[in-house]
Amino acid sequence: MKILNTRKFKLSELVKNLDVTIQGNPDCIITGISPVHHAQSGHITFLSNSHYRKYLPDTHAAAVILKKEEAEGCKVNAVISANPYYTYAKIAGYFDVVPEIVAGIHPSAVIGKNCQIHPSACIAANSTLGDNVTIAEGTVIGPNCTLGDDVVIGAGSRLDAGVSVYRQVTMGRRCRIASGVVIGSDGFGFANQSGVWHKVPQLGSVAIGDDVDIGANTTIDRGAVENTVIEDGVKLDNLIQVGHNVRIGAHTVIAGCVGIAGSTIIGKYCMIGGASNFAGHLSVADKVIITGMTAVTKSITEPGMYSSGIVGAVPNHEFLKNNARFHRLENLMQRVKELETAVKSMTERE
Amino acid sequence: MKILNTRKFKLSELVKNLDVTIQGNPDCIITGISPVHHAQSGHITFLSNSHYRKYLPDTHAAAVILKKEEAEGCKVNAVISANPYYTYAKIAGYFDVVPEIVAGIHPSAVIGKNCQIHPSACIAANSTLGDNVTIAEGTVIGPNCTLGDDVVIGAGSRLDAGVSVYRQVTMGRRCRIASGVVIGSDGFGFANQSGVWHKVPQLGSVAIGDDVDIGANTTIDRGAVENTVIEDGVKLDNLIQVGHNVRIGAHTVIAGCVGIAGSTIIGKYCMIGGASNFAGHLSVADKVIITGMTAVTKSITEPGMYSSGIVGAVPNHEFLKNNARFHRLENLMQRVKELETAVKSMTERE
Amino acid sequence: MKILNTRKFKLSELVKNLDVTIQGNPDCIITGISPVHHAQSGHITFLSNSHYRKYLPDTHAAAVILKKEEAEGCKVNAVISANPYYTYAKIAGYFDVVPEIVAGIHPSAVIGKNCQIHPSACIAANSTLGDNVTIAEGTVIGPNCTLGDDVVIGAGSRLDAGVSVYRQVTMGRRCRIASGVVIGSDGFGFANQSGVWHKVPQLGSVAIGDDVDIGANTTIDRGAVENTVIEDGVKLDNLIQVGHNVRIGAHTVIAGCVGIAGSTIIGKYCMIGGASNFAGHLSVADKVIITGMTAVTKSITEPGMYSSGIVGAVPNHEFLKNNARFHRLENLMQRVKELETAVKSMTERE
Repeated sequence: MKILNTRKFKLSELVKNLDVTIQGNPDCIITGISPVHHAQSGHITFLSNSHYRKYLPDTHAAAVILKKEEAEGCKVNAVISANPYYTYAKIAGYFDVVPEIVAGIHPSAVIGKNCQIHPSACIAANSTLGDNVTIAEGTVIGPNCTLGDDVVIGAGSRLDAGVSVYRQVTMGRRCRIASGVVIGSDGFGFANQSGVWHKVPQLGSVAIGDDVDIGANTTIDRGAVENTVIEDGVKLDNLIQVGHNVRIGAHTVIAGCVGIAGSTIIGKYCMIGGASNFAGHLSVADKVIITGMTAVTKSITEPGMYSSGIVGAVPNHEFLKNNARFHRLENLMQRVKELETAVKSMTERE
Repeated sequence: MKILNTRKFKLSELVKNLDVTIQGNPDCIITGISPVHHAQSGHITFLSNSHYRKYLPDTHAAAVILKKEEAEGCKVNAVISANPYYTYAKIAGYFDVVPEIVAGIHPSAVIGKNCQIHPSACIAANSTLGDNVTIAEGTVIGPNCTLGDDVVIGAGSRLDAGVSVYRQVTMGRRCRIASGVVIGSDGFGFANQSGVWHKVPQLGSVAIGDDVDIGANTTIDRGAVENTVIEDGVKLDNLIQVGHNVRIGAHTVIAGCVGIAGSTIIGKYCMIGGASNFAGHLSVADKVIITGMTAVTKSITEPGMYSSGIVGAVPNHEFLKNNARFHRLENLMQRVKELETAVKSMTERE
Repeated sequence: MKILNTRKFKLSELVKNLDVTIQGNPDCIITGISPVHHAQSGHITFLSNSHYRKYLPDTHAAAVILKKEEAEGCKVNAVISANPYYTYAKIAGYFDVVPEIVAGIHPSAVIGKNCQIHPSACIAANSTLGDNVTIAEGTVIGPNCTLGDDVVIGAGSRLDAGVSVYRQVTMGRRCRIASGVVIGSDGFGFANQSGVWHKVPQLGSVAIGDDVDIGANTTIDRGAVENTVIEDGVKLDNLIQVGHNVRIGAHTVIAGCVGIAGSTIIGKYCMIGGASNFAGHLSVADKVIITGMTAVTKSITEPGMYSSGIVGAVPNHEFLKNNARFHRLENLMQRVKELETAVKSMTERE
């Protein structure tokens, strides 16, 4: 936190080139960022989630980024924006501490034959690159990473520490790959012959577009024959499993702990809630929203919000009764049918 | 893909020693592999999943591997097999690009005392081995791996980059361990004394049989007292959690994102669907199939297919109603019982 | 196992300073540990889970740790304890094989500028430390770890192989971090502008207390503005996802495969079952127990045991019927209401 406090900007500087209006003093000095419920003097904060609106009247922030309709309730300086969270994202960039990039190859890194590494790129300590690897301008390969043969990483991408990228994987520009990510491991393909499983060679690779973010310890398998594909602008959270031959459409966002079985195609502009799972060989349309912990077992052909499962924790003794009832739902249905028959025959007799 | 295209084989060469029949031209030249729905000229493809049968009539493939009963509908060369996917697995091996193994210990690897490393084995760059480690013939330890003291890795096994194997773990022959796998971490054992959790030493290890495959970022904890055991031929997908003292029977296959709590015993020849979870201290019989996203909370004593949960995503507004009804199932049951009593008494009065 | 057998203790030595009573021979020689169902001659075992009580009468163990009420059924030496599992944990420590710590920085480790590394600490092979890193007394940084700039690790903590800790993360004393753990990766924050997701800088860090255990491949994201916080004595199992801004209260224990979405606050002394998931922005009270595979979607304000989902695998054909019924629960409810109306009107007419 100390680091944040060494920077200071006029409010007007922070909003330069942003499509916003200042209500109050544009010369107000901003020295840091706070969440609205813990707003500190001299800081800027934002209001985009209605959970937090109650904190606005008493905020100690120097300025608040908010929508026009909230501005009246704001007694301090306001930055009025049609999209406060986006405006906040841009302003927060002024306070971000990005580790300095030292161009060049660290002497402890091990580099294979015929690699093309741009002089502006950084290959950090104890990383290992195979043969014929291409690393473009301004790209950072963090410490303890491994890149297999024939890997291509586009300009301005950043792999954090301990990322493993298998042979032939290609990645576009400005991607950010968090620690522990594995890209291009063999898909889960085994053929059964007389009870024993035989490995099916995984001949495809993984093709990742531009502006893709992949969260910590997420795994993306290489395709069985063709490539597994992650299109431009996809954002994947942590601990996600992407099976072989999967395609994730552009600008789709997937929260943590999601599993996508092999050969499933997810559309563009989808939003997938955490801990949801997809069976294999499905198609999901563009602009589909899946709520958290959903089990998607059939293709979805229309945009919209979809769900399954049982959500909402309740006291265990209630749960146990309802869970037992669930396992006898078919029986309950039969009893209702018998009642319907009995009542119908009584009504007819009357 | 370019690499695939540089190889070419006669169809008859590809099926040598396989128990299949060629329908068509055995001298047909095969230059690559395609999936049936994207079959390319000169390529061989296969038909084993009925989802894809519709693509057969119009395929541009040079040859298709399929069952006898599908052969009539195939206008191109056919490889008739009782098990097309297995036949495909063997043929695909001709087109696989396996990174060349360079025998020897890379100078950047750090090797402990008293290790026995076969001269044909490969210890890749930036790997770290403890003391008394045994690495058998033809084994590959990838870059940035760590093996603790007293680890034994059998002949022909391959650990990809960034695998962590703790002290005393033993592994059989021909295993394949994907990047990010952790084997032998402490089991989750804590004893509560006055509200504070005290670590229970985990004295066992992990014993892995022959021909075991373990997918990326899967974790297998060491046993509390005895070993956690993965028997021969087990295939584990990515991001699976195997708790301490678990035993997984031979030739069982487990899809991604599964969790198995401590001391649970899974039988042989089981198939476990993705994202399923097992409570601890259970026994699961041989030849059990568990469908995806199932919560197994009791032992299963008979072979068969088992399931739980609610699967099948539906529009959210329908889901919300049904979810709310679920939480009042007990109440619904009571209302049905009251109706039954009322109808019974009316019937009796008639 | 061979290693265990080289140690031997008198039973009375093992229980020194523990609040227990010996029933039988305190000079009995103990050479190892066994689980009760596989008890071996000369070994000590314990009985705390009632599943295993049936093995007590026939045990070959030299001694059994158990509660007073079980002592009568014990024909061999007994260590009577109010908390047998805790007593076991302390005794098992005598048989634990902890790898020897070699103080100092391995020559293959790469250390940044201005680091403060205590001479008693161990920085293992192929590890990479950024600038201004502080490593306290007796701390072990395992092989192939990466620590970013400004990281602080407290005294006596141990990071196993392949751990990634991002810049500015702080960790207390006596923590144990298993292989593959990622701490301080960017939180999953993106602002949508015209369909495209823009990264929101993650300005906070992660603050970890004393005596925290974190299991293999678990991920903990850095806070968006303030820190993600893991309080003293928290125990996290493997493959857990902790989102940005989460706070986990002291002495809470969380089993494997749990996901906690951003900004959720979990209380102190909670127990969270495996594969449960928490939506974001929730509060969970102290002393809450969540059973496995629960989806927590609302705040929980009172201590107690809570659950959701459908647990208990049943034969698939039964499941399919009940699952289908679930998706028509609202319809079933309407039919019951109609029956109630019909029966009521019939009753009134009588």
